[in-house]
Amino acid sequence: MLPKALQELISELSALPGVGPRTAERYAYYLLRSSQPAAARLSRAIDRLHDNVKFCPVTFALIDAHQSVSPLYSDPARDKRQIAVVEDALDVIALERTGAFKGTYHVLGGIISPIDGIGPEKLHIPELLDRIKRDQATEVILALNARVEGESTALFIQKQIESGGLKVAISRLARGLPMGVDLEFADQITLSHALAGRREL
Amino acid sequence: MLPKALQELISELSALPGVGPRTAERYAYYLLRSSQPAAARLSRAIDRLHDNVKFCPVTFALIDAHQSVSPLYSDPARDKRQIAVVEDALDVIALERTGAFKGTYHVLGGIISPIDGIGPEKLHIPELLDRIKRDQATEVILALNARVEGESTALFIQKQIESGGLKVAISRLARGLPMGVDLEFADQITLSHALAGRREL
Repeated sequence: MLPKALQELISELSALPGVGPRTAERYAYYLLRSSQPAAARLSRAIDRLHDNVKFCPVTFALIDAHQSVSPLYSDPARDKRQIAVVEDALDVIALERTGAFKGTYHVLGGIISPIDGIGPEKLHIPELLDRIKRDQATEVILALNARVEGESTALFIQKQIESGGLKVAISRLARGLPMGVDLEFADQITLSHALAGRREL
Repeated sequence: MLPKALQELISELSALPGVGPRTAERYAYYLLRSSQPAAARLSRAIDRLHDNVKFCPVTFALIDAHQSVSPLYSDPARDKRQIAVVEDALDVIALERTGAFKGTYHVLGGIISPIDGIGPEKLHIPELLDRIKRDQATEVILALNARVEGESTALFIQKQIESGGLKVAISRLARGLPMGVDLEFADQITLSHALAGRREL
């Protein structure tokens, strides 16, 4: 029904996260109607990706292939004694967008999730423990997601830090009402967290 | 904050219809985490698109570059005297999915929309009039969208057919309640159409 080249593109685009066949069709059709150079720009950008991006050997954030370490780590203005531990590289961007954090990051490269076959051995936890010692960290902020996997990963890391005899403050992100949400629509757990974590005005 | 190659890919992906920066980030990150061969397959599929897909010179549907005419037109099982007029190539697929149409298609390549600077001269209307004569068409089904632009394009085509002195039945798709919609949630116009077009059981 559709030309083969278009079908193949639709099938490749359907592999993107959250993209169903209809959305893939729309994307493919858009690329077909856009100019050949415009489509070629996207294909070249995909081609260059793997060769030009690598993981920082210290923080495991994404860096340019020619960089030796993440600029967010090497920047002398950033406090190496404060380490925000995140699940993946996009979380770094989310936290950087707030402009409220001036420490450094440590990307775990995943979250403990037995269902998905991800155990703690697959995460960069030993490297985190090394960093805490080497950089004489004073605080580890466990900036993990607010689901069960995030909670158990946080607990595991906390135990590792304690059993390693490391003296460092461990904190996690506050739980509470997100901006713009009506109290009546907040779920029970969120509301209990918001109540327990209430602050004096 | 992000490696340059990743930033460039995010910016190219943001050009896709309905894709904002966050979605583009997710797609780019997915491509980065997938294997290099998997990413290369997508980039090759994009590269091949323009060289391997062209428009059918008769129906203006999308066809393989090596085909001379759309198989939906050349198929002897399909009735050339019945022509469904659609806005773009994806509409052909939508109608084909129903399995309910055994005529042929004519893709206008757009819809009359003064706001977007699309006048009737940009659409394949003269070719439609030629086809009606050449294939001795008995019915033209204006399968256009149910918005103002669809209505005015239908009206324009109807006038062209009549002023060309062509003897052909002109129909348009039924208006009414879509499947699964509660009466109370239907808008007034839809409901008036549904009432006016009611059919005996």
